[in-house]
Amino acid sequence: MSVKDAVNFTLLKKDPRTRARRGVLHTPHGDVQTPVFMPVGTQATVKAMKPEDVASLGHEGSHLILGNTYHLYLRPGHEIVRKAGGLHRFMNWNGAMLTDSGGFQVFSLGDLRKITEEGVTFRSYLDGSKHFFSPETSIDVQNALGADIIMAFDECAPYPADRSYVEKSLNLTTRWLKRCKAHHKDTERQSLFGIMQGGVYKDLRAESAKQIVDLDLPGYAIGGLSVGEPKDLMYEVMDDCVPRLPEEKPRYLMGVGSPDCLFEGVERGIDMFDCVLPTRVARNGQAFTSQGKVNIKNARYKEDFTPLDPECDCYVCRNFTRGYLNHLFKSEEILSSMLLTEHNLYFLVRTMERIREAIENDRFLELKKDFMDKFGEF
Amino acid sequence: MSVKDAVNFTLLKKDPRTRARRGVLHTPHGDVQTPVFMPVGTQATVKAMKPEDVASLGHEGSHLILGNTYHLYLRPGHEIVRKAGGLHRFMNWNGAMLTDSGGFQVFSLGDLRKITEEGVTFRSYLDGSKHFFSPETSIDVQNALGADIIMAFDECAPYPADRSYVEKSLNLTTRWLKRCKAHHKDTERQSLFGIMQGGVYKDLRAESAKQIVDLDLPGYAIGGLSVGEPKDLMYEVMDDCVPRLPEEKPRYLMGVGSPDCLFEGVERGIDMFDCVLPTRVARNGQAFTSQGKVNIKNARYKEDFTPLDPECDCYVCRNFTRGYLNHLFKSEEILSSMLLTEHNLYFLVRTMERIREAIENDRFLELKKDFMDKFGEF
Repeated sequence: MSVKDAVNFTLLKKDPRTRARRGVLHTPHGDVQTPVFMPVGTQATVKAMKPEDVASLGHEGSHLILGNTYHLYLRPGHEIVRKAGGLHRFMNWNGAMLTDSGGFQVFSLGDLRKITEEGVTFRSYLDGSKHFFSPETSIDVQNALGADIIMAFDECAPYPADRSYVEKSLNLTTRWLKRCKAHHKDTERQSLFGIMQGGVYKDLRAESAKQIVDLDLPGYAIGGLSVGEPKDLMYEVMDDCVPRLPEEKPRYLMGVGSPDCLFEGVERGIDMFDCVLPTRVARNGQAFTSQGKVNIKNARYKEDFTPLDPECDCYVCRNFTRGYLNHLFKSEEILSSMLLTEHNLYFLVRTMERIREAIENDRFLELKKDFMDKFGEF
Repeated sequence: MSVKDAVNFTLLKKDPRTRARRGVLHTPHGDVQTPVFMPVGTQATVKAMKPEDVASLGHEGSHLILGNTYHLYLRPGHEIVRKAGGLHRFMNWNGAMLTDSGGFQVFSLGDLRKITEEGVTFRSYLDGSKHFFSPETSIDVQNALGADIIMAFDECAPYPADRSYVEKSLNLTTRWLKRCKAHHKDTERQSLFGIMQGGVYKDLRAESAKQIVDLDLPGYAIGGLSVGEPKDLMYEVMDDCVPRLPEEKPRYLMGVGSPDCLFEGVERGIDMFDCVLPTRVARNGQAFTSQGKVNIKNARYKEDFTPLDPECDCYVCRNFTRGYLNHLFKSEEILSSMLLTEHNLYFLVRTMERIREAIENDRFLELKKDFMDKFGEF
């Protein structure tokens, strides 16, 4: 890690009993305390939230959000975002930002894409038009978007996938990572993170880790997990592969964000998480609470005039009741999505604040037990 | 008007050249400056807005919003709202509130309702179930909702309608108004306003005015306008009928809220307006601006990085560009409805603030000319 990198990581403290860590990501748009959960802003907006309300989530108030390269490349187009002054200005987000590479979305297209050594040809989900994404394209688009952290263009193998496919895939991912690194010039403005692949094969994860760590990048992600494998298997793979990433660099577990998984990931040494789960389930009427999941559409909440989560101090829980939220959801009011989204994101942001405080006070395992006893799995 | 009425009106000033007036509505939930535009919160929410954001619209910050008796009776049910502590508490609105009587919505059902002297039988738009609304029912429901101002249950004749129908209808409306007044007990908590009908027939409007003014209510509304008749005819009818309402009582023109109509209404002596137009068109991508209507979905805004309205100082215009709003609308993002709604309501609230200031300074006609030259009709 060069001192000239846009993003630097300071490891503040390690939990004596687990691999949990407490740190700070220094970014051009402010310091971000880790472990951190990143709200997802796919199409240049965290769905149903004003950016100022995202910025004020929780008690600490410095946030890192994620933007999607694939979506923004297709609409409005990265050149428009560049002309607008970058994604921060376009969407009026003054905090830190990370963009994914578009790899995951492109590979999720299945029959709609074709992979070669050079890159991926795919069709737009908007109009069926044909597009080509290479590692260089992904970097060009992410340079135009201008996030503080940009991600390498990787191939995310599905689950299940046989060993030989996953091995070829991780090697391709490393070759693409080298091309991304060579193509990305302005490392003082944006930091490029590499992505480990290897599916659920521990030796392949080890091989992938070795290859990407050799490239000395300012941060590393673990890709290809939470793609359909059992949670126990995911945790087992993480037990083995997370320690293969350098301790002094931030570690990002991609696409994971259910409350139970956050605790399990932190325990295994993860610093960063992102997931659409809290915002997506909010729009379907599901809320995270300290007592577990609440399906607000349930008729038993119709005359329940208590807060959504009695232990929560968010705007929603301070001002509205379950009965009102039930009414809004059943009436298909936009405010339903707005309030449940704000609550769910607040819940995760506050949970991460509590996790950070617990690590500082050597109480991480106690907090985890308290939380899991009440919350359960999502 | 008894001093014990919940809502009292103070007439502060009259424009020397027109019938425009400047006043204050004193309500149990704060003073409301008039002329005033009331945002509509049909189903216990101003669509796509947090109540705190409604409360902070404009520069003066004391607002009156409208709730819909018909919708809230059907869902969640007025007894649930009563148990929640009334509509103010249910939806967390601390400002002033008015509820309509449900009459307009019920009569809009056409073949789905049947009118008798006693009341109206109608079918629910939600599940087809059969319901009966009388003047007494409407008052009961509005008592449960608990708004500061409640409206009489009236029959709103359609346009066009022949003279004999309209005459019978206005007489029925007066008989129902007497029943409403007799049934509404707690006049210290809620003030009942009467409604003038009479279609576009000036003599029938005069007859209706005479009948309802005799009942000495704390405020009066003009119903049955803006229901399909040409705007010029509406203004002509108003020229004649508004002065028939007592000067010392507030006058409410129901269902009117396009920016040009606000000026025309104020000029003719109206104090209160409501309309779903600003919020409904916002969700369809239309914005009110000082230069007239903007259709944000128009491709020419894609690379327009100027504010929606360069003369506006609302949250949206201070923080976002037309290009971004175009992107949000085309991406079907909830934030599109949120931001355009907030802008449109702010625009009307600010316009009313400017109208009040102009009346105070004997500049109403000058402001109207400036506005109409730039804005035109909506």
